[in-house]
Amino acid sequence: MARVLTPQAEDFPRWYQDVLAKAELAENGPVRGTMVIRPYGYALWERMQAEVDDRIKAAGARNAYFPLFIPESYLKREAEHVEGFSPELAVVTIGGGKVLDEPAIVRPTSETIINASFARWVQSYRDLPLLINQWANVVRWEMRPRLFLRTSEFLWQEGHTAHATEAEARDYAVRILRDVYEDFMVDVLAMPVVVGRKTARERFAGATNTMTLELMTGDGKALQMGTSHELGQNFAKAFGIEFLAPSGLREHAWQTSWGSSTRMVGGLIMAHGDDAGLRVPPRLAATQVVVLAIKAEAAEAAHRLAGELRAGGARVEVDDRIDVPFGRRAVDWELKGVPVRVEVGPRELVADRVTLVHRIPGIKEPVAVGGLVDAVRVALVRDQVALYAEAERKRDARIADVKTVEDVVEVAASGWARVPWADLGTEGEARLAEHAVSVRCLVRADGSLPASEDEPDLVAYCARAY
Amino acid sequence: MARVLTPQAEDFPRWYQDVLAKAELAENGPVRGTMVIRPYGYALWERMQAEVDDRIKAAGARNAYFPLFIPESYLKREAEHVEGFSPELAVVTIGGGKVLDEPAIVRPTSETIINASFARWVQSYRDLPLLINQWANVVRWEMRPRLFLRTSEFLWQEGHTAHATEAEARDYAVRILRDVYEDFMVDVLAMPVVVGRKTARERFAGATNTMTLELMTGDGKALQMGTSHELGQNFAKAFGIEFLAPSGLREHAWQTSWGSSTRMVGGLIMAHGDDAGLRVPPRLAATQVVVLAIKAEAAEAAHRLAGELRAGGARVEVDDRIDVPFGRRAVDWELKGVPVRVEVGPRELVADRVTLVHRIPGIKEPVAVGGLVDAVRVALVRDQVALYAEAERKRDARIADVKTVEDVVEVAASGWARVPWADLGTEGEARLAEHAVSVRCLVRADGSLPASEDEPDLVAYCARAY
Repeated sequence: MARVLTPQAEDFPRWYQDVLAKAELAENGPVRGTMVIRPYGYALWERMQAEVDDRIKAAGARNAYFPLFIPESYLKREAEHVEGFSPELAVVTIGGGKVLDEPAIVRPTSETIINASFARWVQSYRDLPLLINQWANVVRWEMRPRLFLRTSEFLWQEGHTAHATEAEARDYAVRILRDVYEDFMVDVLAMPVVVGRKTARERFAGATNTMTLELMTGDGKALQMGTSHELGQNFAKAFGIEFLAPSGLREHAWQTSWGSSTRMVGGLIMAHGDDAGLRVPPRLAATQVVVLAIKAEAAEAAHRLAGELRAGGARVEVDDRIDVPFGRRAVDWELKGVPVRVEVGPRELVADRVTLVHRIPGIKEPVAVGGLVDAVRVALVRDQVALYAEAERKRDARIADVKTVEDVVEVAASGWARVPWADLGTEGEARLAEHAVSVRCLVRADGSLPASEDEPDLVAYCARAY
Repeated sequence: MARVLTPQAEDFPRWYQDVLAKAELAENGPVRGTMVIRPYGYALWERMQAEVDDRIKAAGARNAYFPLFIPESYLKREAEHVEGFSPELAVVTIGGGKVLDEPAIVRPTSETIINASFARWVQSYRDLPLLINQWANVVRWEMRPRLFLRTSEFLWQEGHTAHATEAEARDYAVRILRDVYEDFMVDVLAMPVVVGRKTARERFAGATNTMTLELMTGDGKALQMGTSHELGQNFAKAFGIEFLAPSGLREHAWQTSWGSSTRMVGGLIMAHGDDAGLRVPPRLAATQVVVLAIKAEAAEAAHRLAGELRAGGARVEVDDRIDVPFGRRAVDWELKGVPVRVEVGPRELVADRVTLVHRIPGIKEPVAVGGLVDAVRVALVRDQVALYAEAERKRDARIADVKTVEDVVEVAASGWARVPWADLGTEGEARLAEHAVSVRCLVRADGSLPASEDEPDLVAYCARAY
């Protein structure tokens, strides 16, 4: 059989490009760094959106929508923020056939424009907390684009909140990190993310604290899957978000922001893909089961079985394209990573059995037609757990505990290094940067979140990152 | 009691602005013509999206996502298309700190960039029909913006399809018009839209046929709620979308495009609002029932009743803000147009009854606690029907059959004129335009869709439009 994908071990980035093309996930747009998300790739994103949106709403935030265009002057109000984003901006200078008096920035993130609204909406402590989320596209001009991971335009959700006290803001930023992002990534995406605090060097432009969820990719690098920031009173002061406290005094609000994006689709591919293609966790999959009719005589039975599986609660598609060779269709479904494939042929039906192909462990088994619904239900649960366990096992095998900058660099060639932050420090961090290695996050020895990078006994996870 | 809104009869546009502000639906963004959609307004849009998306998927189309930025050269490939959109474009000339070699247009619609992908994806008749939809923001610079109705940036869905024959494309454009848009607008939005064909003058730039759904607003004007276009082979020729037909010959595909937008939120307000505020159809409402605790002693009972109503299938919110005066909260919920309000007070609970307030017919009635779930269920069904019937009655009362251009202009001052297209013609249409009156659509005498504007016995609906 012809090789469908470049093997991961041969060239991981090329394998990634091959999967994107062959599984029909995405392709380059005509303007540099932009991306066309094809239907199968978009279906993955839609399922991610639905799961994340449910959790955001459960955390009490409400969706809203703010303009794509931000006046240049808004962006300049928070000094670190504008400095961080200036090199990446797309600027509209002509609108309706005329040169604009003030250029409009295509939002790279929405802190500035959202906080201008917050300043109008927040008057009293009774208006707090104000918990807002938006689903939107944002633009950050990319010199070295990579589909899903780094694109000039990407889709995301960005949450923005205002609170009466620093403690409440901190608690909410952690709640989003844990109850929305970590819960979703662990339970639905089957990803053993490491959750920690960013160093000052890696912090979001304008934040006082950035917390992150870091994924290990199939080639031992790191991918930042989501972030939750404490903004302190920085934007509240820049935009005048003041409230009348119960004390009768006017105070500036304490804020958070947090985001996750289409980059998660890239993470999904890089975390779980293998040499046959994508592997989609059953809980995420828009199509959990494909029932494949091998020949025309089996098409009716395939549709009947699909109906039974749907009645049993599974998300099912039928493949009855009998004019396409069976082998090619099987390869297609492997590429797309649908968790369970049910192959139905005339011979099998005579014997009252079908073939169940489990994409995640990569095994085949004959199953009696009468036991199919139960067998599929068990497979979807078991393979979700197996996928997480496999990712965790591989991750742990590629993490090494070291003590020196030299050792970190060596380990980071193929995995993650864990090093005492006291041994590394900001100076060691700067030296790592020369080797394109970064501190992905700081965690306490017990894995919990540090309240500051000055705490003793912190551990730094270091890696090359996408 | 202080007047909350300008009465509709006094100044309808001001009433509309008042509702937007007081019901916290939307406000102006800082860049000209942009809009901030506040959480309650966005919740209306989210419910619209969910209902329209379900119907689009049932019609076989799949969601995808295409870039925000379109190379200027793409837009120029279809002559009528670029001519139609040129005056409204926003142009990015700077990206990543550099002047771009080729300016990037912020999409005003995505025919050009999507069809560039279609040209790669379509090779054989087996690849057809190709049925794609996208949810996205688009930008058309507005000189006279009006929130939701006409904004420089708006949110919408745009469908784009390619077919092997003209007949198939036509059938699909009609299917979307009827099974997606009309079904949604009639059944969910409770709107008696008039469905017809646009004249050549009003056609979408680049289409061979535009079909529309026209709503009568509370002040007797017209609002275009959605459109479905046949594009013929115009874009297929401009972008080279060719397929190998079963005959062995290469042919250009036949195409459609279709869209509906956040303008529908404006239509909802203008169709059903009254002097007390918005009235949301029960099937659309994100909150169908609010249970209002009049005093602190009733809060527990309010939450218990809300639980029972939820178990009965209703979408319910509790208002237990007992520190806000009852009257002010009642006015708030009237403004927001929540269909059913259940008022729970300590006195009522002693008598084992609550007060049911029906927003749509505007009546109050005492209901025994034991009968509440059934009473609410009945109200939600009945008021949906009543809202449609009321809108239809008002619309029909404001439509007059006339014969001359002068009469059309007179009728259009406060309603719609229906005039034989043979009596009006393109010349009469041009004269109407001088009076800011337009032909909203052409229909056959029996209300069905004309196949051409040259058919005999067509009726033209004429009105002033938002």
